[in-house]
Amino acid sequence: MDRTYNFNPGPAALPLEVLEQGRDSFVDYGGQGMSLLEMSHRSKPVEGMIAETERQLLELIGLRDAGYRVLFMSGGASAQFALLAMNLLTAGKVGRYVLSGSFSEKAYEEALTVGAAEVLASGKATGWAKLPDVEAALASLTEGDTAYAHVTTNNTIEGSQFKTFPDTGGIPLIGDMTSDILSRQIDWKRFAMFYAGAQKNLGPAGVTAVVIREDLLAAAANAKVPAIFRYATYASNNSLYNTPPVHSIYMMKLMLAWTAREGGVAAMETRSAEKAAMLYEAIDGSGGFYRGIVEKPDRSAMNATWRLPDEALEKAFVQEAQAAGFAGLAGHRSVGGIRASIYNGVPVEACRALAGFMNDFRKRRG
Amino acid sequence: MDRTYNFNPGPAALPLEVLEQGRDSFVDYGGQGMSLLEMSHRSKPVEGMIAETERQLLELIGLRDAGYRVLFMSGGASAQFALLAMNLLTAGKVGRYVLSGSFSEKAYEEALTVGAAEVLASGKATGWAKLPDVEAALASLTEGDTAYAHVTTNNTIEGSQFKTFPDTGGIPLIGDMTSDILSRQIDWKRFAMFYAGAQKNLGPAGVTAVVIREDLLAAAANAKVPAIFRYATYASNNSLYNTPPVHSIYMMKLMLAWTAREGGVAAMETRSAEKAAMLYEAIDGSGGFYRGIVEKPDRSAMNATWRLPDEALEKAFVQEAQAAGFAGLAGHRSVGGIRASIYNGVPVEACRALAGFMNDFRKRRG
Repeated sequence: MDRTYNFNPGPAALPLEVLEQGRDSFVDYGGQGMSLLEMSHRSKPVEGMIAETERQLLELIGLRDAGYRVLFMSGGASAQFALLAMNLLTAGKVGRYVLSGSFSEKAYEEALTVGAAEVLASGKATGWAKLPDVEAALASLTEGDTAYAHVTTNNTIEGSQFKTFPDTGGIPLIGDMTSDILSRQIDWKRFAMFYAGAQKNLGPAGVTAVVIREDLLAAAANAKVPAIFRYATYASNNSLYNTPPVHSIYMMKLMLAWTAREGGVAAMETRSAEKAAMLYEAIDGSGGFYRGIVEKPDRSAMNATWRLPDEALEKAFVQEAQAAGFAGLAGHRSVGGIRASIYNGVPVEACRALAGFMNDFRKRRG
Repeated sequence: MDRTYNFNPGPAALPLEVLEQGRDSFVDYGGQGMSLLEMSHRSKPVEGMIAETERQLLELIGLRDAGYRVLFMSGGASAQFALLAMNLLTAGKVGRYVLSGSFSEKAYEEALTVGAAEVLASGKATGWAKLPDVEAALASLTEGDTAYAHVTTNNTIEGSQFKTFPDTGGIPLIGDMTSDILSRQIDWKRFAMFYAGAQKNLGPAGVTAVVIREDLLAAAANAKVPAIFRYATYASNNSLYNTPPVHSIYMMKLMLAWTAREGGVAAMETRSAEKAAMLYEAIDGSGGFYRGIVEKPDRSAMNATWRLPDEALEKAFVQEAQAAGFAGLAGHRSVGGIRASIYNGVPVEACRALAGFMNDFRKRRG
């Protein structure tokens, strides 16, 4: 089978061996005479599988026995935009948002449907080409009425990524890490909670990992929030309050095991830097034919975005790339241009091939 | 491969050919050089797949072009308990609940976290052995302040099932059909909305189908509900407001196609009656060794529940059955006893074999 070079923004490329493992256990799981999809979520194999997935994720980020839990929830990061506010935005408190792209704006707007939310800093005036100074913005905050501060660590539509995160002291720092979790080593403990829809670095769509510090779980016990939407419900029931998306969690488990086998987060960081460098070098060495959308210091190692001299050339680029076996390169419909999403599952070879295609296209059309 | 006789209550048995189809397209989908799990949810193949799944479900229940939409949501029926109230329980209105088992109670309790809810009728005083008179209860209702009336059509823990549903006139009738959707022909148009977690008759866990009448969608536009939790958001975006659980929807599509190939809902009803009769005959013909938990007229064709003379015998029954290749027969932990869940994916042969085992066990231990 010919594998396409897959640069889809999410759902996105998964390692072939993860897909093959998923396939091989699809009809029969562990010789039990049935598929994992047919097993009660309260059976020993499924309970054990879910507990092991939590353990593996905490292990990969060095947070085992560090006072954090992993909740397996549904609805993607977009559901967390609302659930975060429903759980933590109590009366008299304000959720403060760092705006760095479309998804951070959506998180802020959803919070407004639930309670009080304010913008702490925004890069919107630059057309999201430059990240706001998160260090300065957070340094100016005192605990006061702040329920939490929220930051989107990687902006998957715009192609920007925060490099460091400040110590927010007693203010819970919340991170939407959907598009860069497990791609680099960061000081995870700076976050009181972070969440990620699976469909980038954690496996296929269908489950959301919420990593939350235990003290925040206790604070989040709000009886006016339906039980199914309380973080505490998931923690106390080991994500088995109701039927979870069992197979999506299993695919995450396979993806986490693959990540560990490949060398863990440190190896992913090295590899991501190598992959991103190939594309950014093709952009920066193009004599202006390709123009990066984001300022260099803020560029993402997960989503590279760039423009061509005009839209006709951009269209030709995407079409010729598609014909040459490169999928998913059109920029998000809200911004246009080109975007290459190079999550953990995208092999180095795919980036090398794409850089080669970029150079070739420039020579022919530049 | 030996297939276990699978009587799990959900996630539950799926037809082998549905599992095999899922497996065969797991690594590569439609010769695209990638898995369905790696495709953008905004790509033509995925958009088309989701639209086709909606069409297939409406077709199977005769509601195509009848003013209904199918929304593909997350979080199972338990999320709908809350979402229903969040969307439809506006100020000054009351949600009225028919209580017929544990899940209907949960639906009622979640509504109370959101707004005003009242019990319309309850079978709890009988230990859920008898269904409340839903016809009488609903006949007594005038529109007034009633936002909706809610009924759980099949009680999967207790093993009871409503047989008919009244015409509620202008009062929206809402059905939780998680454990019996597509198992029998009913007058679907009596319901303004019904929903079902996939993990019984619609495929594996991970997606919830919400079938909703378009006038209710318009009425449900409540700006104080986060966008991600509004029914209108899903309808206007064809369930693509954010990344949906793509593979779970695909498995539902395979399950719907299988249902159609097998003869549709009419065939499922005949087959379900045949399967249920085998088990109830083994119970009723046991001279009192097996005792049905639910009164005969209220028995479910999806979940048969019964007791043995004592708990030691019940434990022995489950253990010996397990050893003989029958899985999932222990009653729900809240009620004990025995439960055989015989959803659409459970073959007639499995029920015949179980009835044989029941007769054999009775002869040996009765």
